[in-house]
Amino acid sequence: MTTTSKIQPILVDGQWVTESAANTFSSKDPSTSESIDRVYPVSSWETCDRVLEAAHRAFQTSRNLAPSKIAAFLDDYASRIEADAKELVEIANRETALPKSPRLADVELPRTVNQLRLAAQAARNESWRMPIIDRKANIRSCYMALGPVAVFGPNNFPFAFNSISGGDFAAAIAAGNPVIAKANSSHPATTERFGQLVAQAMQATGMPSGLVQLIYRTSHEDGERLVADLRLGAVGYTGARGAGLRLKAVADRVGKPFYAELSSVNPVVFLPGALEERCDKLIEEYVTSGLMGAGQFCTNPGLLLMVKGPKTDAFIQGVVSKYTAAPAGTLLSDSVEKSLVKSLGILNQAGAKCLTGGSKLPGARCAVANTVLQITGEQFLSDPHVFQTEAFGNAVLITVCESLDQIIRVIESLEGNLTGCIYSDTQGSDDRVYGNLADALQQKVGRLLNDKMPTGVAVSAAMNHGGPYPATSHPGFTAVGIPSSMLRFGKLTCYDAVRENRLPSVLRDANPTGNTYRCIDGVWTLD
Amino acid sequence: MTTTSKIQPILVDGQWVTESAANTFSSKDPSTSESIDRVYPVSSWETCDRVLEAAHRAFQTSRNLAPSKIAAFLDDYASRIEADAKELVEIANRETALPKSPRLADVELPRTVNQLRLAAQAARNESWRMPIIDRKANIRSCYMALGPVAVFGPNNFPFAFNSISGGDFAAAIAAGNPVIAKANSSHPATTERFGQLVAQAMQATGMPSGLVQLIYRTSHEDGERLVADLRLGAVGYTGARGAGLRLKAVADRVGKPFYAELSSVNPVVFLPGALEERCDKLIEEYVTSGLMGAGQFCTNPGLLLMVKGPKTDAFIQGVVSKYTAAPAGTLLSDSVEKSLVKSLGILNQAGAKCLTGGSKLPGARCAVANTVLQITGEQFLSDPHVFQTEAFGNAVLITVCESLDQIIRVIESLEGNLTGCIYSDTQGSDDRVYGNLADALQQKVGRLLNDKMPTGVAVSAAMNHGGPYPATSHPGFTAVGIPSSMLRFGKLTCYDAVRENRLPSVLRDANPTGNTYRCIDGVWTLD
Repeated sequence: MTTTSKIQPILVDGQWVTESAANTFSSKDPSTSESIDRVYPVSSWETCDRVLEAAHRAFQTSRNLAPSKIAAFLDDYASRIEADAKELVEIANRETALPKSPRLADVELPRTVNQLRLAAQAARNESWRMPIIDRKANIRSCYMALGPVAVFGPNNFPFAFNSISGGDFAAAIAAGNPVIAKANSSHPATTERFGQLVAQAMQATGMPSGLVQLIYRTSHEDGERLVADLRLGAVGYTGARGAGLRLKAVADRVGKPFYAELSSVNPVVFLPGALEERCDKLIEEYVTSGLMGAGQFCTNPGLLLMVKGPKTDAFIQGVVSKYTAAPAGTLLSDSVEKSLVKSLGILNQAGAKCLTGGSKLPGARCAVANTVLQITGEQFLSDPHVFQTEAFGNAVLITVCESLDQIIRVIESLEGNLTGCIYSDTQGSDDRVYGNLADALQQKVGRLLNDKMPTGVAVSAAMNHGGPYPATSHPGFTAVGIPSSMLRFGKLTCYDAVRENRLPSVLRDANPTGNTYRCIDGVWTLD
Repeated sequence: MTTTSKIQPILVDGQWVTESAANTFSSKDPSTSESIDRVYPVSSWETCDRVLEAAHRAFQTSRNLAPSKIAAFLDDYASRIEADAKELVEIANRETALPKSPRLADVELPRTVNQLRLAAQAARNESWRMPIIDRKANIRSCYMALGPVAVFGPNNFPFAFNSISGGDFAAAIAAGNPVIAKANSSHPATTERFGQLVAQAMQATGMPSGLVQLIYRTSHEDGERLVADLRLGAVGYTGARGAGLRLKAVADRVGKPFYAELSSVNPVVFLPGALEERCDKLIEEYVTSGLMGAGQFCTNPGLLLMVKGPKTDAFIQGVVSKYTAAPAGTLLSDSVEKSLVKSLGILNQAGAKCLTGGSKLPGARCAVANTVLQITGEQFLSDPHVFQTEAFGNAVLITVCESLDQIIRVIESLEGNLTGCIYSDTQGSDDRVYGNLADALQQKVGRLLNDKMPTGVAVSAAMNHGGPYPATSHPGFTAVGIPSSMLRFGKLTCYDAVRENRLPSVLRDANPTGNTYRCIDGVWTLD
């Protein structure tokens, strides 16, 4: 590699290295569509190979690091992010057009810092390893680090899901794995800034030099080769469905865990009693959630279901007038804009009636008018595949059904989703129908909500940010919620008749921390 | 379907149905290679479709059944198996040639009954659901039933891993899922007998009629179509690698959990101090394990590693003379015999020296002479892929290395395995080298043993009968050990702000059984 002053360096094995890249790219300011002046490399396979080698080497150290050391690194990094908040917010705002407040500065950055600190706590505590001890048989098992994890971050959370600072990153590191961060192409400068902070934190806390590495982009071919490489233990991917499925196919062929979060329309059912009882409140609640962040949330409620009834028109009219009146948010990139316009075209073509919006706004800004589409339950059932097209952004499809049975049939025709919500009245008039509806919906979603919009994803051990395929690639895991999300990056390992002084400390007779939960002879205990 | 008196019926939706099958098959007595007179159908896609539909319908009931009811069914079935032990053992002995004692009657049948009863307990107790409750956020999650599970059982455990009575069956049912059992073609009559008992147990305990169904065989094409069908929630497969990978590819394409156990050579390292200290004892211990069940265990120790030293020759000579003297067990089928002969050919061809055995025994009985092959570490490293060829049966490959470093390099060149063992001396002379060796081996195996052969797989919650690919298809799950193995057939489901009376009982404020472990606000408790 030769030094090329105009190309931003990548982070390889603890060093910032400038590639003489054959191809480069830059991000754009979505509020003006103007290129931001930094140039980032499309890394070569030679670079990927060096990165994999360094990650593999770092893993030989990281998986045996004292949990307190990994925790110290995560805590140090969190503090550096806090101290650098102003700069990070500036850069991310420019690259994503997400508002500084209420969003980047006061919501997403604190969430990111909090996730890293929770991950540090979880690493230190070690309960995440789910130690199980059978004393009579002298068989003991727990989750151990799995191997280097490649993280492909999404465009919509430049901090909290960033490949080098977000949930997958925190979970993989806290479980003892190196991370190869692949920046999202829409916010490389934000990611680079995190890379600078993480490099400082690694150095300050004595981490192995290949623990966290950063590349910005590869060719599709090299990306697939990286995912298939045996030096890599697992992959965390959040993003577009097409690209995700191509990488998943590669990982599947070599039997490698590939945790993908791909797409979700997040159905919301408004039962008749709820609409009767509090129609205006529901309009307000829905619109706030639906337009939040210009609708660019994985859990954005994109499919509303209701039975034709006395309040249906009022509800729809209310949503339409608020969607029409609200300023359209700036989308994350021109590719998000293009993809949204394409999805709206597919829905329109299939027969959805456009009640407001429906097209790109004039001008250089990446923006589509707030859009409400409407169809009948019968239409939905005539082509469930097409009417589940995700319109990622500030658009919603309202499906008005003939009956509750028809709503259930629509739900049964859905693919897997991250979330599903049911709004019902508070006096019990919807209770009669709740059971069957919830039973059908529960099978299709990772998280079932009552009288609450899905866009808030609390960082709780009880959270499931996951769901049946294609919402995610495995129905048994969550991407949010520490320590639960760490299990994705663990390898179940059993020690059978292994001499006590050779066991990992978490499986020895004495509790390693005094507050590590372990299941000993069937009893969960701190003993 | 018309009744055809000569073809054995299949169990569809609670009814024994005789197919007018275009193709049929029969099992053989491996001790004589004579066909057993019962004729079994190769089911059509029409039949598979009916079975899937019935399983889907049964799931609508089974996933909401009271845990105590599922438990009652499993207990009832276990008792019927016990009462029918004599007949089951007769049939299985004829179909598999596995000895009645010590094996079918006194080891495998009790183990099978025990597994079913443990699964009943686990279903009743509900701790397997891993309930997590965050009271402040009112977010609660647990594992719920996932959907109908197709179980493809292996040839080598006609009771304990049978698709209609074994570990996968017990785990799937206890988690609330219907099972579609696909019999192993080498013991259909044994499987049929279980089918009769299970049908009685379903009726006696009022289970939905499609809870357990049984087919014997399909075309490859229909098998793939069955695995891909959206009415099916997951697959448990134990068997040959080629067929397993073809089905896995189909499941992967539709994002369906496919838990496969495929192949494993189960390396055993004898450290110099151990050989010096107790060579004769190790010979005895190894040979007992290596020839047990004619070597037809998933965990059969098929690759021995040692450093060339004063005791190496004595050890090898001891193994060779015992292998030569011991009668060769009968193999499970002519296809096992063929496959073993083929593997020995590959190893031979690649340069392994045959010290004893190496070929089929003359006569109609399925049998290969007990076989010991030997190579050097250098040979192994020259072609690790070929020298990891699994020789399923009564054969072993001894690899004599130049140094401990070379052993570690051999281990690093291995694919994933179910188990790995290290024998060391009791006085500490091997302790110096144990650490690096165990560190390398741990990464390649699901279960690490000390001074113990891997063939015993205890049914313990701490067991891991699993391992990195291709030993199994996911490094985070075990196929043996209740309740741990049940998680494979669960769907993580979160309830966010769901009203208390609508929650599954296991997530309500009160402990549903008084002895269900739940993690409430970070504390594992029975409260």
